[in-house]
Amino acid sequence: MKVSELGEFGLIEIISKLVGSSANERIILGIGDDATAWKNDAAVELATIDMLVENVHFTLNTITYHELGWKSLAVNVSDIAAMGGVPLYVLISLGLPGNSEVDDIKKLYQGMIELANTYDITIAGGDVVKAPQLTLSISVTGKAIGNSILTRSAAQPGDQIAVTGYLGTSAAGLKMLIEKLIFEEGTAFLLRKAHQQPQPRVAEGQTLVKSGVKAAIDLSDGLSSDLGHICRMSNVGANININEMPIHPVVKDNFKENAIELALCGGEDYELLFTAKPDIINKVKKLMTTPITIIGDITSEHAGKVILLDEKETTINLNKEGWDHFSR
Amino acid sequence: MKVSELGEFGLIEIISKLVGSSANERIILGIGDDATAWKNDAAVELATIDMLVENVHFTLNTITYHELGWKSLAVNVSDIAAMGGVPLYVLISLGLPGNSEVDDIKKLYQGMIELANTYDITIAGGDVVKAPQLTLSISVTGKAIGNSILTRSAAQPGDQIAVTGYLGTSAAGLKMLIEKLIFEEGTAFLLRKAHQQPQPRVAEGQTLVKSGVKAAIDLSDGLSSDLGHICRMSNVGANININEMPIHPVVKDNFKENAIELALCGGEDYELLFTAKPDIINKVKKLMTTPITIIGDITSEHAGKVILLDEKETTINLNKEGWDHFSR
Repeated sequence: MKVSELGEFGLIEIISKLVGSSANERIILGIGDDATAWKNDAAVELATIDMLVENVHFTLNTITYHELGWKSLAVNVSDIAAMGGVPLYVLISLGLPGNSEVDDIKKLYQGMIELANTYDITIAGGDVVKAPQLTLSISVTGKAIGNSILTRSAAQPGDQIAVTGYLGTSAAGLKMLIEKLIFEEGTAFLLRKAHQQPQPRVAEGQTLVKSGVKAAIDLSDGLSSDLGHICRMSNVGANININEMPIHPVVKDNFKENAIELALCGGEDYELLFTAKPDIINKVKKLMTTPITIIGDITSEHAGKVILLDEKETTINLNKEGWDHFSR
Repeated sequence: MKVSELGEFGLIEIISKLVGSSANERIILGIGDDATAWKNDAAVELATIDMLVENVHFTLNTITYHELGWKSLAVNVSDIAAMGGVPLYVLISLGLPGNSEVDDIKKLYQGMIELANTYDITIAGGDVVKAPQLTLSISVTGKAIGNSILTRSAAQPGDQIAVTGYLGTSAAGLKMLIEKLIFEEGTAFLLRKAHQQPQPRVAEGQTLVKSGVKAAIDLSDGLSSDLGHICRMSNVGANININEMPIHPVVKDNFKENAIELALCGGEDYELLFTAKPDIINKVKKLMTTPITIIGDITSEHAGKVILLDEKETTINLNKEGWDHFSR
């Protein structure tokens, strides 16, 4: 059935029923009234909002509705993870063409509900409107742990730079999907999943806060671009040893000389990049099963800039930067 | 300058500076980090999200960027007003074509900042992305007064139905703009302002809560449609005396036989419709300078339905309903 046949209120009712499963006892009023209401403790509160537009941020040729639901919510939850916070409530605003299939929209919501259940988050409200292309705007609110947060402006000279997990796997997945590259089944699954179903590092971000880490960002635009944000906002420089970057063997083996560029500039890994003194990073490593890799350090020189070093400590130039939504 | 020349981060910097003026001491981290952080009291919290899409919800032929900024935020604040709450923080997600003029986006933000300052709300964060047409997604959070909220499901038989302000003025303004109707200056100003710069009834909503009102909705889709939501969610019926509807003399005089339809079905007045026992409504009237008009009552009969009565108490049929974003 088309959305235009069902109508706005019919669609909201379906969504409301779907989402009902993730309702929690703190929700006073969910979908269906003017606003959503929930009980809240006195706390430092976190909130983020993001918009994903069809044919700008995704194309339905390469992602399923279920994956799109998961990913749209994951990228927002990742912003809360990057602050070391606890994601709690989600509001979803959906722009849809009238000829959208109701079943597809249900799959989209099921992907979001799956993510929400995995991370114990409550979909609290939202709306649907007509739009010329599928447009998702998602806002996630959460709270800080013990009133401490990770910021982009807290890096200090003498800090090591570390990342969780692997870099470039998501970009490799996108390249595979766009260029229709053929890999064996396990590889194709790993690469697709890295790009379409990123796992926001929520528990890891909280462990960082508890361990005394102060500076972090999630890798959405690409390592070089995102680390650049930290350098500018902390007024420090950064040296990255590109051969230390954790690149998954599957990416190294299948993308050869492109692997480093994918890891540096690819973006959308949604891993956490953080900086801290060596003793704190050692403590973090002991508290996590997620791999932690030291890839460089923060300096007082060349403030605002990221310098890339090869194995001979020679500066190499990067001819591409991270993702700017308008330029190029 | 075009947004594509300035780039995403340049635009965010401009917006961040503009918005800085509305920063408040409870904001721990504003625009520019992964998420926004603020201090929060233990309270019942309210949140709403809404999307406005160019050529679906507005056309730049009839609205200025400044007006659009005001209105986009006003309609969200109105949702918090309809719960009787205190709007506090705003997150804004903006989808822009690359050839948007930076000056226009600044005007858009100035309109939002003016609304935020008028209502003592803080623009706390947001993002900008590329989109084929101007798309605004706005989320407003707030808190309930004394943990009480106005809902759509609390109307009871024996309640009177009342509205704040006037009905149909916004729709009359839209009709004037679309049909390029010519009126004398004062009339044109009043009608344009009603449509482009609605005044969310924040103080009024709070007065309703404090006076013991339990059921309310803001008039966004049109009186008949919005009252229908209350009837269905409260499982009650409603009788409306159409000749009691408060229609502004300017609308009566200039739109004659269309005036009643504009008031019933026009939508976007962003007045509050509420129901309560006569003694409570009398109390409310004494506490407000905003006009309050009783237009009908809630019954246990014809549950879920709105019946329209003329001056002879004869039922009249309505051949048009409120705004459904997909149907018709």
